[in-house]
Amino acid sequence: MTAAEVSAFLDREFPQIHHGGRTYHVEEVGPLRARLRMDYHERHIRPGGTLSGPSMMALADLGLYVAVLVSVGPVALAVTTNLSFNFLRKPAQRALIADCRLLKLGKRLAVGEVSIRSEGEDDLACHATGTYSIPDRR
Amino acid sequence: MTAAEVSAFLDREFPQIHHGGRTYHVEEVGPLRARLRMDYHERHIRPGGTLSGPSMMALADLGLYVAVLVSVGPVALAVTTNLSFNFLRKPAQRALIADCRLLKLGKRLAVGEVSIRSEGEDDLACHATGTYSIPDRR
Amino acid sequence: MTAAEVSAFLDREFPQIHHGGRTYHVEEVGPLRARLRMDYHERHIRPGGTLSGPSMMALADLGLYVAVLVSVGPVALAVTTNLSFNFLRKPAQRALIADCRLLKLGKRLAVGEVSIRSEGEDDLACHATGTYSIPDRR
Amino acid sequence: MTAAEVSAFLDREFPQIHHGGRTYHVEEVGPLRARLRMDYHERHIRPGGTLSGPSMMALADLGLYVAVLVSVGPVALAVTTNLSFNFLRKPAQRALIADCRLLKLGKRLAVGEVSIRSEGEDDLACHATGTYSIPDRR
Repeated sequence: MTAAEVSAFLDREFPQIHHGGRTYHVEEVGPLRARLRMDYHERHIRPGGTLSGPSMMALADLGLYVAVLVSVGPVALAVTTNLSFNFLRKPAQRALIADCRLLKLGKRLAVGEVSIRSEGEDDLACHATGTYSIPDRR
Repeated sequence: MTAAEVSAFLDREFPQIHHGGRTYHVEEVGPLRARLRMDYHERHIRPGGTLSGPSMMALADLGLYVAVLVSVGPVALAVTTNLSFNFLRKPAQRALIADCRLLKLGKRLAVGEVSIRSEGEDDLACHATGTYSIPDRR
Repeated sequence: MTAAEVSAFLDREFPQIHHGGRTYHVEEVGPLRARLRMDYHERHIRPGGTLSGPSMMALADLGLYVAVLVSVGPVALAVTTNLSFNFLRKPAQRALIADCRLLKLGKRLAVGEVSIRSEGEDDLACHATGTYSIPDRR
Repeated sequence: MTAAEVSAFLDREFPQIHHGGRTYHVEEVGPLRARLRMDYHERHIRPGGTLSGPSMMALADLGLYVAVLVSVGPVALAVTTNLSFNFLRKPAQRALIADCRLLKLGKRLAVGEVSIRSEGEDDLACHATGTYSIPDRR
């Protein structure tokens, strides 16, 4: 699947991620990996202008889901079983980039990590790991 | 602080949690604990009618934040440093209840756990733990 | 399985947990739960007399494994896939008690939590959650 | 601090990590990072010849501790507050290498990640993240 195919799949299957404005974008996909972008948008902003923790958590979950999706295909819907986050630095007042890669793609479980940075920065705002259960394929 | 005082504080300081409709409610607070409710609402719903993981993550984060807030008071704003989630069962098509309690309230760190259930059920839909950094108070 | 049967099974299958001295004991088992005890022993002690983090992590992993074992039986060997720990207070200079319970026992995954206290105390020294993959049973 | 200085410090301050045989070695240290090695040794081995989860958890905790130590110096003793592990593949029947790096070194908290592999392999056996509380320095 290409980034455009993944985006079309998400629009069809998960339209609610765009509720309140389209802010999550699939920028690149590759073997076991995906890069997503989240716009700096009113509905993600906390007082003082920082981006909220929940908006980064949603970004990480979506990014890992995409990395699984491009690896196992759109038939089998993976289910998140575990997510763990370390919030490291206040994000800047601009878009966030999430680099997601799978550390393991097994028959039943996929495990990945996500590095979230403000666009153009090196330091991480948030680091996440997640596990996804992959349904039996016959 | 009472549940009403906490709600008023959240409305003032975190208005964006109500973006798209008021769905998070502080039901009860007590020493080291808080109970919150999340309405079954269009913006939290995944295809098939289930409530989304990110909406439960936002609920858990808010609930632990409230448990810290009632314990240390509204002056010092705590910052989430770590959150970890196990997604256990698909929630039912109704409101979620989050029971939050602090396992530790130290000078610098508060650590708590959250049990999220569909209203009226015993089994957990999600279990979370979180750590909050408490600023120096002088 | 009774606590004695579980202990006999562990002695046979995991003799290395007793390497350096028998310090882990299964005290009670029940539906979806287990209570273990770890002796205050030289090989678990850090300078200053506190019990080491790794000794508590080993205790939590063993306790959840036992809770799974009593629930699915000794045939299918469960494999740890995720463990997450919050270290809350320095343990006292005596034995630790680990109360383990499963939050979910599914066909493929079991998820549980562990509360570790110094014997006779209420406050937690450590809280853990863990996920175990259960092999297919035919 | 050099790898040799760190090793000497650990021998003096944490002699119990060598209880049952010296198996943990500091191989390299650098800014915000450390590489450790754990020998394939009887006391770490599970039936079937695989290395135990607790031995990998102890390795990760030690490795992150070393990465903090080389960054803040030997005066201030950091305390582990959170550790989270994903067990990805059964390790091979040989030594393990742990590559540890800090994602954040703040005034109060350090957060890092660890990649553990069997020596000579690319795929991870285990991935860990951890948080350490750094005492006030005056």
